[in-house]
Amino acid sequence: MMRRGFQVAVRLGLPRTLHILPRLNSTSTSGSSTGSRVSRFCPEKTDLKDYALPNASWGPDMLNLYQEFLEKTTSEGWIKLPSFKSNRDHIQGLKLPSGLVATSDKGDYCIFTRCIQVAGQGYEYVIFFHPAKKRSVCLFQPGPYLEGAPGFAHGGSLAAMMDETFSKTAYLAGEGLFTLSLNIRFKNLLPVGSLAVLDVHVEKIEDQKLYMSCTARSRDQQTVFAKSSGIFLQLQLEEESPQ
Amino acid sequence: MMRRGFQVAVRLGLPRTLHILPRLNSTSTSGSSTGSRVSRFCPEKTDLKDYALPNASWGPDMLNLYQEFLEKTTSEGWIKLPSFKSNRDHIQGLKLPSGLVATSDKGDYCIFTRCIQVAGQGYEYVIFFHPAKKRSVCLFQPGPYLEGAPGFAHGGSLAAMMDETFSKTAYLAGEGLFTLSLNIRFKNLLPVGSLAVLDVHVEKIEDQKLYMSCTARSRDQQTVFAKSSGIFLQLQLEEESPQ
Repeated sequence: MMRRGFQVAVRLGLPRTLHILPRLNSTSTSGSSTGSRVSRFCPEKTDLKDYALPNASWGPDMLNLYQEFLEKTTSEGWIKLPSFKSNRDHIQGLKLPSGLVATSDKGDYCIFTRCIQVAGQGYEYVIFFHPAKKRSVCLFQPGPYLEGAPGFAHGGSLAAMMDETFSKTAYLAGEGLFTLSLNIRFKNLLPVGSLAVLDVHVEKIEDQKLYMSCTARSRDQQTVFAKSSGIFLQLQLEEESPQ
Repeated sequence: MMRRGFQVAVRLGLPRTLHILPRLNSTSTSGSSTGSRVSRFCPEKTDLKDYALPNASWGPDMLNLYQEFLEKTTSEGWIKLPSFKSNRDHIQGLKLPSGLVATSDKGDYCIFTRCIQVAGQGYEYVIFFHPAKKRSVCLFQPGPYLEGAPGFAHGGSLAAMMDETFSKTAYLAGEGLFTLSLNIRFKNLLPVGSLAVLDVHVEKIEDQKLYMSCTARSRDQQTVFAKSSGIFLQLQLEEESPQ
């Protein structure tokens, strides 16, 4: 069944775009609970590098809050999400809906928010997720390659960090896959090298859409850097057939 | 005179943020016309590297449209904007308002949308600006390090590209310096390696704010990738005192 509102151009130069919005299919073989998605998303053993681990560039605010949340993973239901180089790694064993196939699976791909490989130069972040609360907290420390106005993070870099935190939260909380809209109000400039704490809540899930909100604050909560809302589209990923 | 609505935390850890919104000062020594800003922004001679020039990674769509717009710079009033590594280069000789001083001027900084140095891997883009029409066109070709869903550009990378195009347009058209809000509706996924043409218009300038709109389409205009609106705050930059 086709729906209006979001289309995907699957190949370059297609004169018409292809609607890819089937209603959620109850016969899908994918795990449909938050628990099963979290289990798949956070493998106990993997050879993939996790970029969401402390390194020498993390400042004291980032390190301290990371430790605080790490302790909450043992007692308060929080989960530290791993962060691999590509979303291809995160969805290993799952396939995108037909019609939504990458033009090429070859080559060196990287998720945008891990595009700068030098520690501390670009995005430093870690996301903690709370399944029961449908809430995430992202600790984000922008490096000097994320600059906009001299000395401050580019508004677009914070927008992308919000979108990425929404994205992971939407997927784990309710199979949200694609951003439909993103609305951001900037309140204060975020200095390069400082910490922004992004607090993300799933407000509601309705009509195949997840509605989320985010506030990015300083650690002491005295400064609000930006507030945003995002709407994500639900779309199930299916198990790939064994080779 | 202080105003509500936008504040800047100038240093880490400040318990209170500093309002930095004086009304536009008519005694400012900065050039106040679009023409003078364009002249300063596009130096005839400079040793700085311009990243908005064709390279081997540009696809045929990007190259062809670049040539088309380049021809329009000689006859139709369009201007090709150079793109240096940092906004510090773009505002050389100008100083930010007092209270809005970077925590450090030292180190290796880079504007976010030029953060990936390998040609074709990240952001490839060039912006053309039309002073009389208060309009910009950005040719944007996302590389594989800007990925979100496998094979497609991350929504945040397009958001940042829109913010950056708004930013340069706002500054040249009306001394707009800071993003106050950014609202994006995503319509189609943008395949990695394909061309998005961002068409930006200044809708109005009112009460120290520039209101802008953007539509990102495929070259054949058959596919709309996203639509957005942005509001930027006007703030004059002053000439630096000669040393």
